[in-house]
Formats: sequence, structure tokens, C-alpha cells
Amino acid sequence: MISRAEIAAAAVRVGPYVRHTPILRLDGTEFGVRCPVTLKLELLQHSGSFKPRGAFNQLLSMPPPAAGVIAASGGNHGAAVAYAARALSVPAEIFVPEITPQTKVARIAGYGARVVQTGATYADALATCRRRQTETGALEVHAYDQQAVLAGQGTVAREWEHDAPDLTHVLVATGGGGLIGGVAAWYAGSAEVISVEPQGCPALHDALRAGRPVDAPVGGAAADSLGARQVGTLMFPVAQQFVAAAVLVPDDAIVTAQRLLWERFRLIAEPGGATALAALLCGAFVPPDHAHLGVLVCGGNTDPAKVVS
Amino acid sequence: MISRAEIAAAAVRVGPYVRHTPILRLDGTEFGVRCPVTLKLELLQHSGSFKPRGAFNQLLSMPPPAAGVIAASGGNHGAAVAYAARALSVPAEIFVPEITPQTKVARIAGYGARVVQTGATYADALATCRRRQTETGALEVHAYDQQAVLAGQGTVAREWEHDAPDLTHVLVATGGGGLIGGVAAWYAGSAEVISVEPQGCPALHDALRAGRPVDAPVGGAAADSLGARQVGTLMFPVAQQFVAAAVLVPDDAIVTAQRLLWERFRLIAEPGGATALAALLCGAFVPPDHAHLGVLVCGGNTDPAKVVS
Repeated sequence: MISRAEIAAAAVRVGPYVRHTPILRLDGTEFGVRCPVTLKLELLQHSGSFKPRGAFNQLLSMPPPAAGVIAASGGNHGAAVAYAARALSVPAEIFVPEITPQTKVARIAGYGARVVQTGATYADALATCRRRQTETGALEVHAYDQQAVLAGQGTVAREWEHDAPDLTHVLVATGGGGLIGGVAAWYAGSAEVISVEPQGCPALHDALRAGRPVDAPVGGAAADSLGARQVGTLMFPVAQQFVAAAVLVPDDAIVTAQRLLWERFRLIAEPGGATALAALLCGAFVPPDHAHLGVLVCGGNTDPAKVVS
Repeated sequence: MISRAEIAAAAVRVGPYVRHTPILRLDGTEFGVRCPVTLKLELLQHSGSFKPRGAFNQLLSMPPPAAGVIAASGGNHGAAVAYAARALSVPAEIFVPEITPQTKVARIAGYGARVVQTGATYADALATCRRRQTETGALEVHAYDQQAVLAGQGTVAREWEHDAPDLTHVLVATGGGGLIGGVAAWYAGSAEVISVEPQGCPALHDALRAGRPVDAPVGGAAADSLGARQVGTLMFPVAQQFVAAAVLVPDDAIVTAQRLLWERFRLIAEPGGATALAALLCGAFVPPDHAHLGVLVCGGNTDPAKVVS
């Protein structure tokens, strides 16, 4: 189980390398609800998502060998590892599946990493990555199922609580569960943490129902960022204890959330980045009137032409 | 001359209607400078620019007649007046020139205002607007040369100083001067306020040199938002006293700033919104090492396809 102390230690470690991202306090009427809503704009983070928090924490906790670092990713984690590796002058090799959009492939390559695009889903890219790792001896940075990665992602919640100490509920998108695992470990019940997944990628929803991580389908609009076949084994007990609910949203609610973020806020969020907000818009999560709701906007790596109609 | 007390009163008036926009504290190395840099993300404001601050302050200071409100605008002011009029249930009529991009025309119409696109530049649209105003008796909300509008725009500086009290220098884009007039009146010398204009729209630069508002050319990439032929008569004495420098930037620096905001921050700024940052990137303004520099990103009303290459 990840402790608040580990997350606090991670925050000190990654502090010089990540951005303290801003919050935006809003009236709930902007979203048709009665309680105030505070967005955490983590899409403004380096490399366009929250992922550098975990990547830096892993690289700074365990100095990589001369062979450098290696990772499999739907795209955002790969970009973050490539970004962190460049910042720390370490070579990086990143494996992404065929569904990874070119925006993300270009971003990873732009940070100087070697990119290999292979396999249908993240799980396939991970298998290839691991075969390669046994050849090179590079340090693997897992996209979500690694203690230092979870603790690093938890720093977003520590920052958020500092800036908005009165949140009662937070909505967080879930893929493999690294982000929500870290967030739930930080809040540890002091705010209700609600998981939001696309109907096409219900890994945590299905795991909580089964009582253990189980294989789930991987599909739909946000599959490149939220398409893990199973949630991580490290995050699962955290979720059992500290995730208050796991809701599902249809893809059209995600598209609606992306359009609203552009129309009303001039923000470009990728599908996975808009998924938490989608739960509020489509009513998959209805906050109580007395709530102060936090919504994490966690990534912006998409082609704006796909958002702006 | 606008006083801090007037700006503080405006902040109370407009508070329920405008967003408290976030700041983003950054290491200057992100921009190749040694001092810290804090961006004020005013492009996240309602209607996509800072303009609702002034529009709401005018409408709340002087209740409009049944004929409603009327305004001429390059686009952003019109969108803000239309937004504010809808919020206050007042009809609005907006005149924009032919250079106004369709993004902005659609935004104004989307808020329910009547839009008339006429004339080559803002000054031409203003002349038509004023003829129409004498017919209808609607309340004119000037884009920059009105006491309540200046005081309203000044509220962005009040908010910024509250969130980042240690700024020593702030970079602000100038068109007709409503924004920088309000900002300079708020800081009143406690921080150095630097005006940034495109080389194609040097209205304040030329006015300060001439010792009075004079006609200046209107052209280039940011003409729709910064293309006033003259700066306002109300802001000019404020600028003479409290604007420390007026620098000019080439259009290619504006485009570079737009691309950097997208690549590194996932922010879509319009040309006028990226103009202040352009001064830092192209060296038109070089902050001293001991500075804490603020940069106002003031608008995001553009088609992202024009930013993302």
C-alpha cells in the first residue's frame, strides 16, 4: 500500500522537474450542478499529461544503468519517460501499440527517444518491450504498476489538496490505475475519490466487481490513454479501500466534454483527459449539493482538429 | 486617470460574473531567461479573452436601456459584450470589420447577439456602429476608451497581484490600450508594466513617441485583436506615467510564441494572446536576472488549425 509519506517524499524528489499545475475554481452552474467545481489543469504538465510525476519519481529513485530506460505505453507515459530521460541525460526506448495516435508518437520521438510502434494494444506493446528489456538490461518504467510510479502520480493530489483544501469529492479518469491509485492513496478517505472509465475500457469497474484485477475489454475513443487490459496489482487494494465509486461513461459524453472544454475554456483535452468531466456532464456521477467537487483534466495530447468541429 | 479604488470597486461589481483565472509559475529556463516567469492564463476567461471584465463593469455601472447595448469590435470585445448582455438578459448588436475571423463572428452570434460585419478595420466598424447607435439609442460599450471599461480590465492586474505579489515586471499586449491602461493604473509603478505590440500595429509605441495618440498603421497577424488605429485618450496619460517601455515584435515571433504555448503547454492562444510572450522569446524585452516576470496570455479565440502545424 502506498503511504502519504511516500507521496510526500516523491513530491520533494520530483519538485524541481514537474510543474505545479493550476486549478480553476468555477461555479457549478457552468456544468449544470449546484455545488462548486474546481478543475485541476494537469494537462498543462510537461509532455502534456500527469505522467512525468511518476516517471521522474522512478528515474530519481533508482538511477538507470548505461543502457538507459525502457517503457511500454499507450503514448502519454512514453512521452513522459522520454521527457524525463532527456532531462536526466539518459537514453530511452519506448514501445507503443498501433492505436497510439501520431501526435503522441511524434511527441515521444521529439524528446529524442527511440520509438517502436508494435502490436494491437498496450498489452502487446508491453510484451515486446519486456523481451527487449531482457536483451538490453535497461531500467523498465512501468506505466502504472510500480511503487515509485504510483507515489509519483499521487503528488498531483497532494498539490491539489494544498491549493483546494476543501474538496469533498474528486473525479479521476482510470486506465491502468496509476493515477487514481496515487490520488486515492493521498486522500485516503478524506475526500471521496470517484473513478471514471469509458464504457469501452472498464478495467477498474470490472476488477472491483470481481474482487480482483480481471481482463476487461479495451476499446473506444480513449483507448490509447485508458486502455489497460487489467488494472495494476499495486493499485487494486488502494482502490478497494479508498475509491468510493467506479462509474462508466459513453464515448459521446467524452466527446461532449472535450467540446465543452474548448468552447467554454479554450482548453484542448484528449479523450482520456476529458473522461472525468464526462461523468459530471452525462450524470454518471451526481454530486450532492453540499459537495465541493474536483475534476482532474489529466491530458491534452491530441490533434485539436479532432476536438474543434 | 483611473484609480486603484475604481478598479477595486469594479472587481466587486464583476466578481460574480467573471472567472478568477489561474497563474502558472515557471522556471525561466523554459523561455531561455534566468528569472522566474509567471503566466496569467486569462485566455481561460469567459468568451475566450479578458474583455468580459470591462464589458460587465460597464453594463453593471450603467443599466442599459430597452434598446440594449451596441459595440464595435475586432471580435473579442464583441464576444464579451454579447456574453455579458446574454448573462444580464439585454439585447446586443455588434459591429465587426471584415478582417474579423469567422471563429469570432460565430462566437458573437453564438451568444445570441446580432452581428454586422462591415468595413476594412475596427475604425470603420466603429463609425457604422455609432451611426446605428444614434438611431437605436442603445448603450455603447466602447472597446477600450471608456472609464468603466478600463477599470474593469484593471481587475485582471488586481487578481494577478493577489496571486503573484512578487512580480517586478509584467508584459502586456496593447491594442487600443484598455487592457494595459487598466493594468498600469493598478500597478501604478509598483511593477514595471511593459507594452508589447506587433510591428504592424504600433499605436501605443507611436503615441508615446509623439506625446499624444496619433494614427498608426493597422496590419499583420494580430490586427483583429490589436489593430486600433489610435490608443484611447483615457489610457494615454496612464501609459505616459506608468508604462515603463513600449516594445514591438515581428509577426514571426508571435507565431513562434503560439507554437511554443501549444507544444510545451497545450494552450491555444490567438496571435494577440501570444504577443506579450513573443517579446520575451525574440528578445524585444530582456528581463534583468533579479526580475520576477509576469506574462499575460490574454486571448484564445482562434482556429487551432492555424496554430498547430
